Amino acid sequence: MELFILTIDYAGTFVFAISGALAGMKRQFDVFGVFILALVTAIGGGTLRDLMIGSTPVGWMLNPVYLYIIFGAFLFAYLFQPYMRKLRRSMFLFDTIGIALYTILGLQKALAFGLSPIICVFLGVVSATFGGVIRDVLSNEVPLIFRKEIYASACLAGGILFLLTEQLIGEPLAMAVAIITVFVIRLMAVKNHWTLAFGKKASGGV
Amino acid sequence: MELFILTIDYAGTFVFAISGALAGMKRQFDVFGVFILALVTAIGGGTLRDLMIGSTPVGWMLNPVYLYIIFGAFLFAYLFQPYMRKLRRSMFLFDTIGIALYTILGLQKALAFGLSPIICVFLGVVSATFGGVIRDVLSNEVPLIFRKEIYASACLAGGILFLLTEQLIGEPLAMAVAIITVFVIRLMAVKNHWTLAFGKKASGGV
Amino acid sequence: MELFILTIDYAGTFVFAISGALAGMKRQFDVFGVFILALVTAIGGGTLRDLMIGSTPVGWMLNPVYLYIIFGAFLFAYLFQPYMRKLRRSMFLFDTIGIALYTILGLQKALAFGLSPIICVFLGVVSATFGGVIRDVLSNEVPLIFRKEIYASACLAGGILFLLTEQLIGEPLAMAVAIITVFVIRLMAVKNHWTLAFGKKASGGV
Repeated sequence: MELFILTIDYAGTFVFAISGALAGMKRQFDVFGVFILALVTAIGGGTLRDLMIGSTPVGWMLNPVYLYIIFGAFLFAYLFQPYMRKLRRSMFLFDTIGIALYTILGLQKALAFGLSPIICVFLGVVSATFGGVIRDVLSNEVPLIFRKEIYASACLAGGILFLLTEQLIGEPLAMAVAIITVFVIRLMAVKNHWTLAFGKKASGGV
Repeated sequence: MELFILTIDYAGTFVFAISGALAGMKRQFDVFGVFILALVTAIGGGTLRDLMIGSTPVGWMLNPVYLYIIFGAFLFAYLFQPYMRKLRRSMFLFDTIGIALYTILGLQKALAFGLSPIICVFLGVVSATFGGVIRDVLSNEVPLIFRKEIYASACLAGGILFLLTEQLIGEPLAMAVAIITVFVIRLMAVKNHWTLAFGKKASGGV
Repeated sequence: MELFILTIDYAGTFVFAISGALAGMKRQFDVFGVFILALVTAIGGGTLRDLMIGSTPVGWMLNPVYLYIIFGAFLFAYLFQPYMRKLRRSMFLFDTIGIALYTILGLQKALAFGLSPIICVFLGVVSATFGGVIRDVLSNEVPLIFRKEIYASACLAGGILFLLTEQLIGEPLAMAVAIITVFVIRLMAVKNHWTLAFGKKASGGV
């Protein structure tokens, strides 16, 4: 179980960092800019959570391995930029499992600080999604998640489900159920072009 | 007195959250984006103050009622969007009393952490105004407050006045004086189109 | 030594604040906006470092002199705006010594919190450079440092050099070596139009 969490945590960090690096390269940032974008995408959400609950030094600073993983992802994105399209499926897989796991890990960390469950679910979603928000703010763009994806809603559903089922079915199973839920919601959303825009009907799938 | 402060605090949170939600709806954000914009507008300034003085977990997380109020404001803005124009006067009233109160509450919290008065006045102004700054940054716009309103100057005047008069006339009266000051400055500024732009004469009222 | 550090620290704050104030004036912000831009440019990097390592209240709040220096710089920029071009050389000098010093002071503060050297170097660079990043984000621009300068790389080189040589040659000498290194790299970069852009050759000097 520990090993599973660690694997997903590291793989998620790697995939998040690649998404940040690619965003920076698309905008023709220099080396420093690309690296910072990879970094904030990977650790921004958890950093914000840790700051707000008062868990400092923030988590990723206590173990340099996160910095190494991000640096590895940065090099990987640089070297294999032309082949990234082919890796989209694997990246989608790890990204989605990653946000599910980050939601739950964030939620659990907040619970350990004695905050009320609804605040903890919120902090779980922040952990999973605000790295991307900071990436977009630093790129001078409107955060993608505010417009197009139901990414955050999937995390919210997963977080609530985990909280409701953990006592009944135990942590490992509740975690599996939550991760699968996030994955299915996101997959269906992408397939069916779901959005949550106001004042428009969500467009149906083709 | 306690009740008065609590009422203004909750009403201010509600009005700030509505202003954030409306900003998000204007930009056609999806549900998550609109909610986050409502949230950061309502609690962003206080969060920044709490982080900088080291009061964590940040204040609004200790009591879920703020999250409920923001969610209520979000629903309210969504349902009554077409009628919002008619509510402008009430909103201006609560918004202005709100920023005055937040300035003073922020100032007092900073004083309780033993910081020097000038830093505390600054933190009071940050508490009252930076929710709007974060709202604008997340909307990919230049913060409105950096250009057009003397909002912040009104808070600054109110904060300094409160600090100077609190010992002489007692907290409740000093608070009333400060709130009225902020209110009058802001009202006159809006009526007379005051600005604080460099290199231009402030245009007179019509 | 103490006096040297204090002088550079204050002069650096002054120069950083002027750069922020000028950026705000260029964008026709009002008085409040210009002041906030001066402030975040001067203290933003150190604030972010202090938040992430958990050193609160953040450093500059413990001594109001930083606020006075920033206010002085703000007035200075306002009064002498037309003559600023002539001061460019002096400003470049203090700015570059400033970032070198901030890198090392930031690095040392992080070391004092028991973090690993690589994280500390990173925090040194953040201290020196993120004031400018926050300035650009608040101005609704892509951070300059992500595109054009090797500012950050110079800081990184200086920070690593300091860390490697401090034990061998002592703190004062290591600091001098690091500052000179940052200075020379940045000077050569400006003279030779060095960049670190991906996918393009760095253009040679004229």
